[in-house]
Formats: sequence, C-alpha cells, structure tokens
Amino acid sequence: MPLVRISMRAGRPAATVKAIGDAVHRALVEAASAPADGKFLVITEHTPEELIHPPAYLGVAKTDGVVIIQVTMNAGRTIEVKKALYARMADLLADAGVKREDIVISLLEIPKENWSWGGGEMTYVK
Amino acid sequence: MPLVRISMRAGRPAATVKAIGDAVHRALVEAASAPADGKFLVITEHTPEELIHPPAYLGVAKTDGVVIIQVTMNAGRTIEVKKALYARMADLLADAGVKREDIVISLLEIPKENWSWGGGEMTYVK
Amino acid sequence: MPLVRISMRAGRPAATVKAIGDAVHRALVEAASAPADGKFLVITEHTPEELIHPPAYLGVAKTDGVVIIQVTMNAGRTIEVKKALYARMADLLADAGVKREDIVISLLEIPKENWSWGGGEMTYVK
Repeated sequence: MPLVRISMRAGRPAATVKAIGDAVHRALVEAASAPADGKFLVITEHTPEELIHPPAYLGVAKTDGVVIIQVTMNAGRTIEVKKALYARMADLLADAGVKREDIVISLLEIPKENWSWGGGEMTYVK
Repeated sequence: MPLVRISMRAGRPAATVKAIGDAVHRALVEAASAPADGKFLVITEHTPEELIHPPAYLGVAKTDGVVIIQVTMNAGRTIEVKKALYARMADLLADAGVKREDIVISLLEIPKENWSWGGGEMTYVK
Repeated sequence: MPLVRISMRAGRPAATVKAIGDAVHRALVEAASAPADGKFLVITEHTPEELIHPPAYLGVAKTDGVVIIQVTMNAGRTIEVKKALYARMADLLADAGVKREDIVISLLEIPKENWSWGGGEMTYVK
C-alpha cells in the first residue's frame, strides 16, 4: 500500500523521472502515513497522441509537462489528510521540476481486504 | 474530471486514435455532464500479446478492434445517465470507425475530495 | 467482467507472458466465479525505471520479477472468496514461473451498472 500509476509525456531525463516517482512516494509517506517501504510505482511515458490534456481546466493552465498520478490506497483518510497529501505532493514535485499547475492527482480507495502484497496472502486481514 | 484510460491494439492511424479519444470525451460531456474543458485521456496501444480478449463475451463478438475504456469520475450519476453515456459513447465511437460490439466501458466512481486538478489544491471541496 | 491490468518488467519470453495472463484469468474463474469467457487482460511491460518496487515490503522480499495485478470486478465477493482468489492466483502464477513473494494483487470493486461490455448496452442491469 499504496499502488501508484504515474502517466506523463515521454522525453524527461531518467533522473527527472526518478525524482518524480520519489516525490510522489515521499508525499504519501509524509502526509498520508503510507509505509516508507511500500514504494510501488508504475510509470508510463507517452507520445503527445497518447496523453491528451486541455490547455487549461477550471482556469488552471496545463502544459505538456502534465503529470497524472492515480493512487490506489486503503480507504479511510480524512479530507484534511487528503488536502495535506495534495499540497505535499505539489511541493515535492515542484522541487523535482514539475509545474504545480500540471499536477493532476486522483485517489482510488479500497478496503483492506482488497490487497495481497505477496505470497498469495490477504495481507492486512487475517 | 473525468480521467479516462483507453486501451486498444496498436496499428490504427493517428487520426483514428484521435477520433476515438474525441468521441469518448464528447460522450462524457453530452451524456454525463462532464466539463467540456476537462479532457484528460491516457491512451495505450498494445501488441496482440498485451491486449487479450475473448472471441466473444456474453454472446457479443469481439474482434482485434476492441477498445477498452475505463473512466474515473465523480460518484453519483444515476443508472439512467450511465445508460445514456454507454449508448452515446457507442454511437460516437461507431462514427469513429469502432465496431459497437468492440466497445468495453467501465466506470470507477470516486468522491469529490479524491481529486486535485492542479496546484496541490483539493479542487472540488474547499 | 472482470477487467485485469497486469504490470511487469519487460524481458520475459512471450510464452511466459501468456502463461501469466492465463494463470490470472483461470484463478478468477476457479476461485471467484468469474465467467470463463470473460478474459480481458491489459498487460504492460516496463523498463526498470518505470516499474519501481522496494527490495521488500512488510518483510516479504521482492525481486525484479514482480507482477502487479489490478482487477476491476463486480463488488460483493466475501473476504473468504478474496482469500481463496489470492491463494489460487499465487498457486497458478507459481506454476507459470512467478515467485509467490513477487505477486501483488489489488481489487477495484464496482457496481454492476458500471459496465458496458459491448454495443453500448448496460450489460448487467436492464
């Protein structure tokens, strides 16, 4: 926990892609009590034809630097924790060179029994 | 809102891929009140080994033209709205050259506080 | 039903990738009453920079052979069914050459009205 999918335009240097993944994970740990050793990221880099975004959404400009983050995590975080998570993720991603306006985050919440983290075991419910 | 993932076999012309994305977004706007400027699509094109489908499911034939659409959206649409969304998406995708039988749609519904659309803000809940 | 996303490091032979997909689907059929003809898999193979995992999580070692499986399925399976699903998936994936420790599974449950399996119809609710 959690499982993170990150989608972005291809072309960033490998070090930047790594920094983006690190920032997303660190924000989850610092702001949403995710376990430090639970860093599972699936990153996909796309052609312009595959990653479509508007020039702006709700008045917030979007550039080709858009980073779309979808986190599958245990249900139950409060609204305050989620707000802190978004803010921390934006701060750390800005340090990694992503424009704050370009950061799109969504959360998929699932119950604890919906995970198996290895060995065919239901990890969190025995 | 929403965030759409579209998975299909590689090989379509770029113009067709674009038309497919446009059709999916337009159906969301027309049938499910999605915002016109909220067009965020992650499209992945796959080898035959990566996109597996049966020859038919529930009696509906499937070809290699299968298009799998997964929409993450705010919770709360009624069954009637969802029915209208599927029908409209099929109509518009048929115009884009996709066989109606090949269109697979699933919806992931999340609460409004589970989105940040830029700037590290909780977009829909203040 | 269901729709399965499988993410793994690139480099396995095509026959092994096929065996992994087959194992995941067969476990869903045998342990979770998924329909035998409902085999829809989206498989993505990644560079090391794109599929990030820790050396271990919760004391369970992880190798570069990690296979991350995310299943979107109808809501309502019991905890016992989910446990049986994880165990069966691990058994069958082990037969396909995946280390049991490397198998990560998560379930996204959605209501029946959130699917259209072709033709623009709401498949399970009329």
